[in-house]
Amino acid sequence: MDASLQTSLQQKRHLVEEALERCLPSGPETPTPLADAMRYAVVPGGKRLRPVLCLAACEACGGDQAAAIAPACAVELVHAFSLVHDDLPAMDDDDVRRGRPTLHKAAGEATAILAGDALLSLAFGVIADDDRLTDAQKVAALRELTWAGGHSALAGGQVLDLEAEGKGATAEALAQIHAKKTAALITASVVMGGISAQAEPQQIEALRTYGHHLGMAFQIIDDVLDVVGDEAKLGKKVGADAAHDKATAVAVHGLDKARALAVEHVEEALAALEPFGERAALLSAIARTMLERER
Amino acid sequence: MDASLQTSLQQKRHLVEEALERCLPSGPETPTPLADAMRYAVVPGGKRLRPVLCLAACEACGGDQAAAIAPACAVELVHAFSLVHDDLPAMDDDDVRRGRPTLHKAAGEATAILAGDALLSLAFGVIADDDRLTDAQKVAALRELTWAGGHSALAGGQVLDLEAEGKGATAEALAQIHAKKTAALITASVVMGGISAQAEPQQIEALRTYGHHLGMAFQIIDDVLDVVGDEAKLGKKVGADAAHDKATAVAVHGLDKARALAVEHVEEALAALEPFGERAALLSAIARTMLERER
Repeated sequence: MDASLQTSLQQKRHLVEEALERCLPSGPETPTPLADAMRYAVVPGGKRLRPVLCLAACEACGGDQAAAIAPACAVELVHAFSLVHDDLPAMDDDDVRRGRPTLHKAAGEATAILAGDALLSLAFGVIADDDRLTDAQKVAALRELTWAGGHSALAGGQVLDLEAEGKGATAEALAQIHAKKTAALITASVVMGGISAQAEPQQIEALRTYGHHLGMAFQIIDDVLDVVGDEAKLGKKVGADAAHDKATAVAVHGLDKARALAVEHVEEALAALEPFGERAALLSAIARTMLERER
Repeated sequence: MDASLQTSLQQKRHLVEEALERCLPSGPETPTPLADAMRYAVVPGGKRLRPVLCLAACEACGGDQAAAIAPACAVELVHAFSLVHDDLPAMDDDDVRRGRPTLHKAAGEATAILAGDALLSLAFGVIADDDRLTDAQKVAALRELTWAGGHSALAGGQVLDLEAEGKGATAEALAQIHAKKTAALITASVVMGGISAQAEPQQIEALRTYGHHLGMAFQIIDDVLDVVGDEAKLGKKVGADAAHDKATAVAVHGLDKARALAVEHVEEALAALEPFGERAALLSAIARTMLERER
């Protein structure tokens, strides 16, 4: 990624961090253990991929990224919620996340469940309460995000993922798990960026295609990194998928085929950006970094 | 309750049951175990108090109750989500709900957590997807419901409730738990009914007062019934609060004082309805039945 795009990326991350701080509960009306747990789940975060994509997609459609701040925070809150619940003992039973104890290890299971629930409500509330978007934009964004966070996508993907443990999966079934569990929320990120820019329907559709393929590539590389990655860099245990006998791209396709599939998805993502020209330079660069995560 | 109000109540329940059926996932995009678990949590339900209140509040403000169907379903979905998560082993660890095994007993803990999550997303999605309300009404309803379902209210109340176990609570602390855990969602029900009717701000405020006091009375009577109630009628175990050493109105105030407090709240609720006149007959009747639940 060239220096000016790196600067733009850093600036977007900074904007997101500041905005997330403003979203998190701070008043006396929230019990301290709950406010602390919500903060623990959100700060410090990872690379803020989803909110950065939301802001970048807004700009790719000619919008001012400031308009997309609320949906950007919302998608990160949904992501944080899903990590907290997926880590629970009844689900993936993970002890470490981003180099620290998972929330249920740090704060107890009840607080972790409730903090996840509260982050999900907050995500939708942040969009509803925003003062930059029109009501029509808010409703469009909320339709996108409630779908991506719901039974057809995120929750459904996690159910399929847990079901496939120990049983393996066909390539088709795995693609469905990845689409629901990972690509749907990444797609919602860029689509909500487009909505924040009042983008034309065909721009939204192009962003949808980009988001889907980017999300698929992201999850495949994630599966690859679980086999060949560096634990210190990842901030979580390597080999966890195999230990749980999860259906992964590596288990289903083998390493080489999985990598090739990720390359194909990145190419599809890049192709979808063509109509946007130079304005989509950051979205393109982010797609190319998917493949570099391995190196 | 007189016969014509009984008929109106039954008709509202029927409308709600039909509308909830249409909300629940049925397509191939939702994994069957998840769709089944969501349905188990919602159907058959209880008395549908919250959605009935939403429809009745819409009519009290001169609106057509058909406009309030989506918020009515949404509030019931949030209620169903909260019951599923509150029953989990890490929370209240309840085995029986509405005379059947709780969802985690019937479908496993992971599915129960995910079904709860999906019901919460669906609740907000049902409002965003509605085709009767204007975008402004949807945004106003969503602000209300995300607040009531979030860290300041429902989730915060459950955290305080769990924290108070075995420790007792002051009358003030208990009132805060009841306000957050129970009254907030009942308040959101009637306020969203008012929003669906394009009610004036002072009508909304009157509904807010009514909802708060009705919710407080409801929770106090619930605490009383846990001591003196009939297990068969309640569909859940009696004495569960005492077994968990919960902070309840009976534990804090004693039976007589708790009952007197419930009477006071019902009187406050009824007083708030005065400006609505005859149009609030059903809301008044529902408030009066709070006290009859014991008999």
